[in-house]
Amino acid sequence: MPHRLDAQLEFLAEIDKLKSILRQNLVGDRSRRENSAEHSWHLGVVACCLAEYAQEPVDLLVVVKTVLIHDLVEIDAGDTFSYDPSPKAAKVAREAEAANRLFALLPDDQRREWRALWQAFEDGSTAEGRFARVIDRLQPLILHDLTGGPVWKAHQVKRSQVVARVGVIETCAPALWPWVEALLERATRDGWLVDA
Amino acid sequence: MPHRLDAQLEFLAEIDKLKSILRQNLVGDRSRRENSAEHSWHLGVVACCLAEYAQEPVDLLVVVKTVLIHDLVEIDAGDTFSYDPSPKAAKVAREAEAANRLFALLPDDQRREWRALWQAFEDGSTAEGRFARVIDRLQPLILHDLTGGPVWKAHQVKRSQVVARVGVIETCAPALWPWVEALLERATRDGWLVDA
Repeated sequence: MPHRLDAQLEFLAEIDKLKSILRQNLVGDRSRRENSAEHSWHLGVVACCLAEYAQEPVDLLVVVKTVLIHDLVEIDAGDTFSYDPSPKAAKVAREAEAANRLFALLPDDQRREWRALWQAFEDGSTAEGRFARVIDRLQPLILHDLTGGPVWKAHQVKRSQVVARVGVIETCAPALWPWVEALLERATRDGWLVDA
Repeated sequence: MPHRLDAQLEFLAEIDKLKSILRQNLVGDRSRRENSAEHSWHLGVVACCLAEYAQEPVDLLVVVKTVLIHDLVEIDAGDTFSYDPSPKAAKVAREAEAANRLFALLPDDQRREWRALWQAFEDGSTAEGRFARVIDRLQPLILHDLTGGPVWKAHQVKRSQVVARVGVIETCAPALWPWVEALLERATRDGWLVDA
């Protein structure tokens, strides 16, 4: 078999492990925690469905590729809860190392392309990377809304922490912001979020 | 909130249910059955990674959208095992009804677009629909290879049944076919598939 296809199939088998990485969020029926593969699928559909709300012009294929692969680094580095107070530097280093290993399974042209997509997501350094971040921040809000915020409650998350985390939505997809504000207002009133 | 965004967010919450639809396939570490949401995520990455093997020119964004939404009908209609011998007509009717209900949650332009993508996947009536079928047939083979074929063994699946099911790979992505043939050869020799 050609080495190129062999490398691609090895990569595609390796990333199956993302299905075993658990996030803090629950799935909509609250029966269990969401895993990072199904989260990434949801992001792909959200991106296609809400592309019209991107403030800057974006190449939707690039956005979708980005959200599909943005969490692969968790295969080596694990998932970090969004409101984990521990220092970020160690996480950044762990994830960069993971990106180096995983994307290096691919042929060189694809390694370069996908590594760059992941980096642009991390840095928010391209319009597509920024809109992928919008989608990655929005989808958990849909789940918090659906489940009644049990994860926020359990971790005593403050409204101000959520506002800081999802601020990219206001900047890069302002038409979605009123929905976010209304949700946070309701979540605070109903005690899902600490009013601080 | 504008009715359009309201409808889109309702759709995006509804499709979360795909995470609870279980397939026959196991995930790579054999710990549990794969669900249709994480299967659809895997298909998205496989499509991006192997697009170069499409025999006909394809619009990759259309292919990726298609694989991300191709199984949504299972939310209402359930998953059907690929080698289920029961008549197909009832399944086709159930899934068409499901497609009508689910995509009707979307604004009209998106309803039409996504319903058409799903139909083209079912019929194989476009180059993108056919390549999406290639990806949908190939990904389970990657998992059978990774897990040692326990699902084929449990259902006593025949090699000829698999060949009939995955034939679209030979037609629409012939460069991938030698890998499929080698896998089926090995699977038959090692008793994962019945030699018939």
